[in-house]
Amino acid sequence: MEVGVLYSGGKDSTLAALLLEEFYDVTLVTGHFGISDDWKHARETADAIGFAFERLELDPDVAHEAADRIKEDGFPRNGIQQVHQHALEELAATEYDAVADGTRRDDRVPTVSRAQAQSLEDRHGVDYIAPLSGFGRTAVDRLVASRLEVTVGPSEEIDRADYEAELRTLIAETDGSEVIADIFPDHTQTYVTGVHRD
Amino acid sequence: MEVGVLYSGGKDSTLAALLLEEFYDVTLVTGHFGISDDWKHARETADAIGFAFERLELDPDVAHEAADRIKEDGFPRNGIQQVHQHALEELAATEYDAVADGTRRDDRVPTVSRAQAQSLEDRHGVDYIAPLSGFGRTAVDRLVASRLEVTVGPSEEIDRADYEAELRTLIAETDGSEVIADIFPDHTQTYVTGVHRD
Repeated sequence: MEVGVLYSGGKDSTLAALLLEEFYDVTLVTGHFGISDDWKHARETADAIGFAFERLELDPDVAHEAADRIKEDGFPRNGIQQVHQHALEELAATEYDAVADGTRRDDRVPTVSRAQAQSLEDRHGVDYIAPLSGFGRTAVDRLVASRLEVTVGPSEEIDRADYEAELRTLIAETDGSEVIADIFPDHTQTYVTGVHRD
Repeated sequence: MEVGVLYSGGKDSTLAALLLEEFYDVTLVTGHFGISDDWKHARETADAIGFAFERLELDPDVAHEAADRIKEDGFPRNGIQQVHQHALEELAATEYDAVADGTRRDDRVPTVSRAQAQSLEDRHGVDYIAPLSGFGRTAVDRLVASRLEVTVGPSEEIDRADYEAELRTLIAETDGSEVIADIFPDHTQTYVTGVHRD
């Protein structure tokens, strides 16, 4: 069975892939809007940790809507949620038997409710799997510590490929980079540089 | 890290154990009330599929309360939920770093809400993991088909070690076996006889 895992190069989506690799043929799939080349960081990480990689073209209109929403809200949560749902829809419309993401039990965003999951599955004839949704924060932290090599640093210096990178770029282009620090207060990001397999 | 997985010998708790075995030292743990010897079926399955096994003594008062509740309700859901929560509490009070069960995304019972999970973790200083809670019905069915050897049959002929077996025994003792079919209409049970590892 082929599963496409929505992939950012971060620790959650990497752990999700590790949890599935004994049971599925895993491809890491990074959505991008064509705004920046940040998706290439995810490809580098995928190569480094030995997974197949694909990129998934997303609708730039959704990025613009999400950026507007984020500026209006003054915080990224709802815009990120909007983009994640779009990415899942696009991924579910491809040829994988199953689609997955790195959402965790204790995440505030993105979240995928049971009803949303079932709707995605029914409409696309695909399984939706959230391998980390049964793991709490400390359980995830322990898996990260035992399985992943990570680099931690301020967002602007870390090469991640999550939606945030492109949304930041978009907002900086229209509103200047000085608003970014206000809107995205959580400065620290992590990305994965290697994995330990037993 | 040591994880104790609440274990019935059924497919869900077996899959939960398989999902965790690459990341934890897994022990299958079967709760029992001392009412019947059904827990021994779980030990046989654990031996057959190559996992460590322990039994966990549960409070018979909880079984009696649950049996009363089930008879009052006319269906098993709430009583089973009560027993499952008790078993998780008892398991969390032991020495494992993490405790787990086979609850699935689409299960009606037993369920463990995010708030219940966090409360269990905080009170006992343990991680609670529900490895199947990110998998829907068809995803679980596909994993079962690819990984497990199972026997399916009517409940009364299948050697399972879930709480139902002891609760049935208890209710049959007080109310006669003829009420069992009314209260437990879902006749078909599955238990695991082997696993396929890659």
